[in-house]
Amino acid sequence: MFVHRRDVQIQWGDCDPANIVYYPRYFEMFDDSTSIMFEAAGFSKQDIVKKYGLVGIPMVDTRAKFHIASTYGDWITIESHVEAWRRSSFDVVHRVLKGEALAIEAFETRVLVGHHPDDPDKLKSAPVPPEIIERFNRG
Amino acid sequence: MFVHRRDVQIQWGDCDPANIVYYPRYFEMFDDSTSIMFEAAGFSKQDIVKKYGLVGIPMVDTRAKFHIASTYGDWITIESHVEAWRRSSFDVVHRVLKGEALAIEAFETRVLVGHHPDDPDKLKSAPVPPEIIERFNRG
Amino acid sequence: MFVHRRDVQIQWGDCDPANIVYYPRYFEMFDDSTSIMFEAAGFSKQDIVKKYGLVGIPMVDTRAKFHIASTYGDWITIESHVEAWRRSSFDVVHRVLKGEALAIEAFETRVLVGHHPDDPDKLKSAPVPPEIIERFNRG
Amino acid sequence: MFVHRRDVQIQWGDCDPANIVYYPRYFEMFDDSTSIMFEAAGFSKQDIVKKYGLVGIPMVDTRAKFHIASTYGDWITIESHVEAWRRSSFDVVHRVLKGEALAIEAFETRVLVGHHPDDPDKLKSAPVPPEIIERFNRG
Repeated sequence: MFVHRRDVQIQWGDCDPANIVYYPRYFEMFDDSTSIMFEAAGFSKQDIVKKYGLVGIPMVDTRAKFHIASTYGDWITIESHVEAWRRSSFDVVHRVLKGEALAIEAFETRVLVGHHPDDPDKLKSAPVPPEIIERFNRG
Repeated sequence: MFVHRRDVQIQWGDCDPANIVYYPRYFEMFDDSTSIMFEAAGFSKQDIVKKYGLVGIPMVDTRAKFHIASTYGDWITIESHVEAWRRSSFDVVHRVLKGEALAIEAFETRVLVGHHPDDPDKLKSAPVPPEIIERFNRG
Repeated sequence: MFVHRRDVQIQWGDCDPANIVYYPRYFEMFDDSTSIMFEAAGFSKQDIVKKYGLVGIPMVDTRAKFHIASTYGDWITIESHVEAWRRSSFDVVHRVLKGEALAIEAFETRVLVGHHPDDPDKLKSAPVPPEIIERFNRG
Repeated sequence: MFVHRRDVQIQWGDCDPANIVYYPRYFEMFDDSTSIMFEAAGFSKQDIVKKYGLVGIPMVDTRAKFHIASTYGDWITIESHVEAWRRSSFDVVHRVLKGEALAIEAFETRVLVGHHPDDPDKLKSAPVPPEIIERFNRG
């Protein structure tokens, strides 16, 4: 299984008047982490969109549980992997670590969306290319 | 039960290259909606923080399910209420409507946090003031 | 001259650990104000993009001078107008007022951009439609 | 003179429906760059705030000129330095490079702000510590 890790430093502008990360910023970091994980696996978002004729990979369902707060200057590690593949959707799990401690658990379900073959103004879910699944399963 | 509704117009900068709302923006809107709901009930965030000596009302757990996408220029209605109260935490439900259709369902659990009485540098959960619960139950 | 005013309440998530608005948020508010001003004048961003075949109205040059800080709960008024029109670009001035006081002065130069007629993958500046200039000059 | 460079990859969520960076995101990147430059010089924002009793280093005046657009997946280099020091304020210049080309020029003037000695609820500009100026001049 392909697991992607990256270190992120919390910045001043990520934090709110309580001196902790304003939680929508974490969802930005998770969105970035999913993109960067795909790029690290050899499938950049540009490739996915252009090569496979997709419009995007929108979010269907996402949840995050926040256990430990962080403030500006802190370093966190975001560890991401694909938990499950379906025909045209997949689940990603993100774990945020502060040192050894689990600070946040998040999951997301995304769907691949392309243009409808009969009407380019309409959108339609698109199958996950098998080479992507194979690459992620290989690790 | 106190229910708060507000209309929000999706802006250009809320949207991504797929021409739909970049989903972390929805969490910003939900955070604003919770604050504005409390202010509409007579408990502005400034009051809550100053009057009750709190540091903030951080997010513990949040989830959103996205059914219908929106793009810039669209108007959505965000309908919010407190679903449950506990000693120092509470659950909020946000429903995003496009016309009659349910576009997004979201819930959040937040906790009231103040300074620890023995060490002002430490944080500690704080009980929900009973007048807040009473006000929201009254509707 | 067409002048647009709107009231904006500063939200918790707009503010940083110093308890004042994180300044990039003001640029988001200014971008929204320019769009909303055009919509109020009868030229929504959707119209401009679709009717005139534009890709967008990107920023060329922007500056803001910050005189008075604001914090969450504060209400500000953003007063916007087009200061000058050129063939394919224009200048907008935004003045942020807190009560009677001038809190921020900002200006921006934007350019209308469309597809190149010979190569749809290339971009090219587009002339400002005369009916837009006329509408804004009429006030 | 101390010059700080960092490479930033433009992410999907940084971009708008025209497929280019939504310009307020650049101001977030510049704010981060100033913080990271200070940290690289040995004066992290946490140190500056705690050691010198400051509340923050708010923006007084900022401007950016956009020459070349970027889209998601692109890498840019942000090159930052302090252009001038005054008693309690200083100017930063950011240059964004795409390869050899100058994509954006930005400047900012910031002021050091602390608590007023006679009234901790009031703010007051604070002198720039001489060791900071010396460190940046040394390069």
